Amino acid sequence: MTKDQNIKYLFEPRSIAIIGASNDKGKIGNAVINNIIRNGYKNKIVPINPKGGEIEGIKTYKSILDVPEEIDTACIAIPAKFVLESVKECANKGVKYAIIITSGFSEIGKIEEERKLVEAAHEKGMRILGPNVFGIFTAEVSLNATFAGSIIPSGNLGIITQSGALGLSMIGQATVGNVGLSTIVSVGNKSDIDEGDLLEYMITHERTKVILIYMEGVREGEKLVETLKRATKIKPVVIIKSGRSTRGKMAAASHTGSLAGSDTVFNDIIKQCGVLRAENMTQAFEWSKFLAHNPLPLGENTVIITNGGGAGVMATDACEKYNVNLYDDLQHLKTIFSPSVPEFGSTKNPVDITGQAKAEDYTKAFNAALHDSEIHSVIGVFCETSLFTNKDLDAAVEQNYNQFRSAGKPIVFGLLGGQTVADYIRESRRKNIPVYEDVYEGTEVLGAMYSYKRYFEEKEDEIVDFKFDTTAVNNIVEKVRKEDRSFLFSHEGQEVMKIIGIPVPKSLIATNIESALQSARTIGYPVVMKVVSRDILHKSDAGGIALDLDNDEEVISAYEAIMRNCRARMPRAVIEGVAVSEMVPNGTEMIVGGRIDSSFGPTVMVGLGGIYVEVMKDVSFRATPLGKQEVMSMIKEIRSYPLLLGVRGEKTRDMNVLVDTIIKIGSLISCCKGISDIEINPLILYEQGMGAKAVDVRIILSRNER
Amino acid sequence: MTKDQNIKYLFEPRSIAIIGASNDKGKIGNAVINNIIRNGYKNKIVPINPKGGEIEGIKTYKSILDVPEEIDTACIAIPAKFVLESVKECANKGVKYAIIITSGFSEIGKIEEERKLVEAAHEKGMRILGPNVFGIFTAEVSLNATFAGSIIPSGNLGIITQSGALGLSMIGQATVGNVGLSTIVSVGNKSDIDEGDLLEYMITHERTKVILIYMEGVREGEKLVETLKRATKIKPVVIIKSGRSTRGKMAAASHTGSLAGSDTVFNDIIKQCGVLRAENMTQAFEWSKFLAHNPLPLGENTVIITNGGGAGVMATDACEKYNVNLYDDLQHLKTIFSPSVPEFGSTKNPVDITGQAKAEDYTKAFNAALHDSEIHSVIGVFCETSLFTNKDLDAAVEQNYNQFRSAGKPIVFGLLGGQTVADYIRESRRKNIPVYEDVYEGTEVLGAMYSYKRYFEEKEDEIVDFKFDTTAVNNIVEKVRKEDRSFLFSHEGQEVMKIIGIPVPKSLIATNIESALQSARTIGYPVVMKVVSRDILHKSDAGGIALDLDNDEEVISAYEAIMRNCRARMPRAVIEGVAVSEMVPNGTEMIVGGRIDSSFGPTVMVGLGGIYVEVMKDVSFRATPLGKQEVMSMIKEIRSYPLLLGVRGEKTRDMNVLVDTIIKIGSLISCCKGISDIEINPLILYEQGMGAKAVDVRIILSRNER
Repeated sequence: MTKDQNIKYLFEPRSIAIIGASNDKGKIGNAVINNIIRNGYKNKIVPINPKGGEIEGIKTYKSILDVPEEIDTACIAIPAKFVLESVKECANKGVKYAIIITSGFSEIGKIEEERKLVEAAHEKGMRILGPNVFGIFTAEVSLNATFAGSIIPSGNLGIITQSGALGLSMIGQATVGNVGLSTIVSVGNKSDIDEGDLLEYMITHERTKVILIYMEGVREGEKLVETLKRATKIKPVVIIKSGRSTRGKMAAASHTGSLAGSDTVFNDIIKQCGVLRAENMTQAFEWSKFLAHNPLPLGENTVIITNGGGAGVMATDACEKYNVNLYDDLQHLKTIFSPSVPEFGSTKNPVDITGQAKAEDYTKAFNAALHDSEIHSVIGVFCETSLFTNKDLDAAVEQNYNQFRSAGKPIVFGLLGGQTVADYIRESRRKNIPVYEDVYEGTEVLGAMYSYKRYFEEKEDEIVDFKFDTTAVNNIVEKVRKEDRSFLFSHEGQEVMKIIGIPVPKSLIATNIESALQSARTIGYPVVMKVVSRDILHKSDAGGIALDLDNDEEVISAYEAIMRNCRARMPRAVIEGVAVSEMVPNGTEMIVGGRIDSSFGPTVMVGLGGIYVEVMKDVSFRATPLGKQEVMSMIKEIRSYPLLLGVRGEKTRDMNVLVDTIIKIGSLISCCKGISDIEINPLILYEQGMGAKAVDVRIILSRNER
Repeated sequence: MTKDQNIKYLFEPRSIAIIGASNDKGKIGNAVINNIIRNGYKNKIVPINPKGGEIEGIKTYKSILDVPEEIDTACIAIPAKFVLESVKECANKGVKYAIIITSGFSEIGKIEEERKLVEAAHEKGMRILGPNVFGIFTAEVSLNATFAGSIIPSGNLGIITQSGALGLSMIGQATVGNVGLSTIVSVGNKSDIDEGDLLEYMITHERTKVILIYMEGVREGEKLVETLKRATKIKPVVIIKSGRSTRGKMAAASHTGSLAGSDTVFNDIIKQCGVLRAENMTQAFEWSKFLAHNPLPLGENTVIITNGGGAGVMATDACEKYNVNLYDDLQHLKTIFSPSVPEFGSTKNPVDITGQAKAEDYTKAFNAALHDSEIHSVIGVFCETSLFTNKDLDAAVEQNYNQFRSAGKPIVFGLLGGQTVADYIRESRRKNIPVYEDVYEGTEVLGAMYSYKRYFEEKEDEIVDFKFDTTAVNNIVEKVRKEDRSFLFSHEGQEVMKIIGIPVPKSLIATNIESALQSARTIGYPVVMKVVSRDILHKSDAGGIALDLDNDEEVISAYEAIMRNCRARMPRAVIEGVAVSEMVPNGTEMIVGGRIDSSFGPTVMVGLGGIYVEVMKDVSFRATPLGKQEVMSMIKEIRSYPLLLGVRGEKTRDMNVLVDTIIKIGSLISCCKGISDIEINPLILYEQGMGAKAVDVRIILSRNER
């Protein structure tokens, strides 16, 4: 199968066949061909129906094999039991893409039937969208090959949706909100083509200014991450992923069979890709609409201009919530706004032009902000007063909005009032003016824009290509596998750490009291001892650990105690000996991990270690490969980050070493196929320049070598 | 002044004088009297104007002193400079309440002028609302004594607002949302009457079903807490408090001069009162409207009924976010819903009646839920399909809503779709049907209702009246004051702990090596030693601490080291000796504190102690007095609560002792006027039955004895 064929032929086919086209108004095949015709599709339409003749006045072939011309895309809308045969015919005909609208495959458990469709298609290099999709709409060629009941408005928002029903709702919402679409496509069961493939078209498609994705589960997460990273460097991507909650995940699984991984992992990795994650439909549409129609701000200085003090305070709260930075050069603010602010008003930010303000006062203040290069965005807040008519609102809002937009400066409006204001808002929103009923809503969209801007302008992070002796690690893995273990012993884990250059406490294995004593002296007191046994996973429960041993005597009695305890508590355990290790000095206990995530492949994790990981869940995740900048941002995300900067007069922890350790673990999990899980807990981190020590290392092997 | 006069006369005056009433259309005094007349006020209207004659056809007196009848309430709307004289006249006339609409007092820094108004009023037992208010509206007597430009719709929502401008916006929003008001009153500068006073009317006012408060700062927090606690046991109270953020707080301070305390403290204490805190206006109105028009559910079992899988997943996520519990007895769900769920649907929760569902299918499923006593509330989700017309929507929504409402079971609807759905939503909302454009919105209002229900049904918490020897504590405080200190020495703090029965490590003060040795032996090894000196606040920086001293030798050398260090590093410090204390075993380090909060008076705090307090800010607050139930809920609020239940096989910590300790600290801070701050950090908490020890106790005295 050729995977390199251009996805453009799916979105902009030069010819489309409708298999199951029909004159029968009740049928989906009729809805689809009617939509194609009604929408004014620019290229060739080829109805296929065993009866032949004409459908909607177009010559109809009995089989796709009879069609003389080349067919780029075929839409299949026939009963499930006939689909496989039809797919085979399409593949034989040389069709590039088959859109299978028909449902009744993996979503109801018919996984094998679905697999066969893909197999048949791939044999001839054809690719499949679906099954269980509502079709595709592309403004570029006026193609509406869906069974949507309503007209789809053209515009510049591209949508990919995993749920067909929500896709149809989105078309509805787009119409209501006057948001035009450049394309909308549903991925359904994702038997072959997934979000990553569809993104390829939207990334380079000029008309598409913003991409919105609704998804329930991730398939081929590594590819998705790579594609999303490229996409967001060109245009904003907004994602709604449902199944955030534990129960939601179960519901999603039973709905589409998608295996939803941890939402925290998804959330962190999607942020790593520069994607804006919306919680619900309303939010997603508001963000997309605003991003599609308004310029990115040139800087971080936002000013609130209000005629009501209370509303100004609320807008200020909203700015903090949504990470919008308020400009606070009081001197400069005074210079700019003094001419527009009356007595009892305030030139501080929020700029309060008081309840006496009329349209011209707003315009004066807005103009001051517009023409000042220190101010990069504005939140206009308006509380209804008796001084205002609808005409004044118009003058205060629409004209100023247009000026700001032309000047490349974003502005949003929060309008609080009664029926007049509500009517004005409804009308203005249809003109795509960013007016909102509440200061929080307007500030939120501006916050989303800033969040994208910050990512967009980040300098490219250089991926660290960390090399190590993979053969040496693989040899250890091989040896463990031969012994039929799925996990590494502590000393083997430490061996792996040494290979990748992560310092571990000095440690020796002893199999009797004599060698334990010898080891302790070699390492130097104080030491700790831990039992080594494949059968004892919870060493401390078995009494298999002794800490802070200061001299020979203590080592002897600890050795005896460990053996006695373990034999008594775990009589069947085969004990290989004890590990005698250096007692490491105190420092900040971190956890660093690596894991092959079921959705995203190789990922890393960092957090505050010890007991707090379990309770506080203060960890953050990233997908590999990694650059240092990304790893730093990952570390900064943990709530306990200030601890690493040093509290109560402590010095900063050794960040370079922490960053290095994470990158090394990332390389290890990415390169050594046999390993599925790595956890260093605790990694004791010392102050700047003093490094770190991996005290406890757990490594688990993958079930099957990847 | 008599404070016991009934607040009812402010809301429902038997006679109202308008001072500054005018025939001049541009004046506020004209707007007010016109509103009163137009709104059909049922009782006596008395215009006052130095010109006399008639205003709007009503006999006008030149001075209030000329009026023969009794006047309950006077509205003052004259220039600021005449207000004091007018207040004096009203007071002399025996007016009960003066509503000062006029602005230009403390909000622009004229604090003294405002104080004089209150003084003059209180001399004769008159009370003041304002200054700087927009007036008052009471549906009960059809009184609209405001300068609002629009008609105020009557209904059952009572509003108190600190911001006049936002109050006018709220009237507007109430009209748009078809939310009627039972009363609305602005408190303005709160020179005398505040939210607490106004609540008294609304609590017992039958027509008022829900109370909504907008506030920026708290005055007389103790009274407010007490009133709110009573209010929420009768009806829901929703509060928006702006100035949540650091900058917002500054903006609020410069706007109304309100001193906004810590938002965390406010948030915790308001929750303690059973109040629902909304973030913004939209939220507050949605919650209030839903609570005013719908029955409280009888239990926690919620069911989602949907025609779209994806939307069902989102609703499930929303339920987790807003603490709405989904019913999950799969067997019973199957029994109830099997008859309404077609093939490929699901009887699990969300109940998926599939995209084929028509109005009658919804009704069938809703009916099943309605008639089943195990199900207590329903979220109906609807994705637009071509099978539906507007009439179907009506049949699926309104009729079912009415049935549920009559049956006392709450139901909300999330309707996703295009223009038809949007129009339907707008119309239905005007009929107060709880329909929303997004599943999150609908779930959120239901979550707010559940949150209120849970508080409402909590059994009354018995206040613990903890008695201790206050004289003994006051004696210590007195002694410290005499020494001109504002803080207690460590041993004095421990003395206080002993008085209230909180265990502290055994400790003795030694002034020479001999007595240090004696003390150590008395206490028993190991011991710790700390320098005692009023001049040394940071003992460890001064080298004034020695830990883990195992024998006489170590005590001797540590004593010498401490003296040497402190003399070298703090040559001017007067050293009173060293405290020799028991070295306490390890346990969970907590922090417990008490403080006179600037807004709420005596408050307590609990959190995870040590370094985590500063970084993780994992603490919760309550206002005194306290019951055990409340203290447990306070402890459960901290994120690290699971640590106290025991992780990794540890036993539960001694909760009874932790609860007791918090209650004792609460009593201490409430009863001993001289103390402003108490902090036990760490309080070492041991496992169940093993108690706790207050290792470090800091007590700070109030600047002036209260």
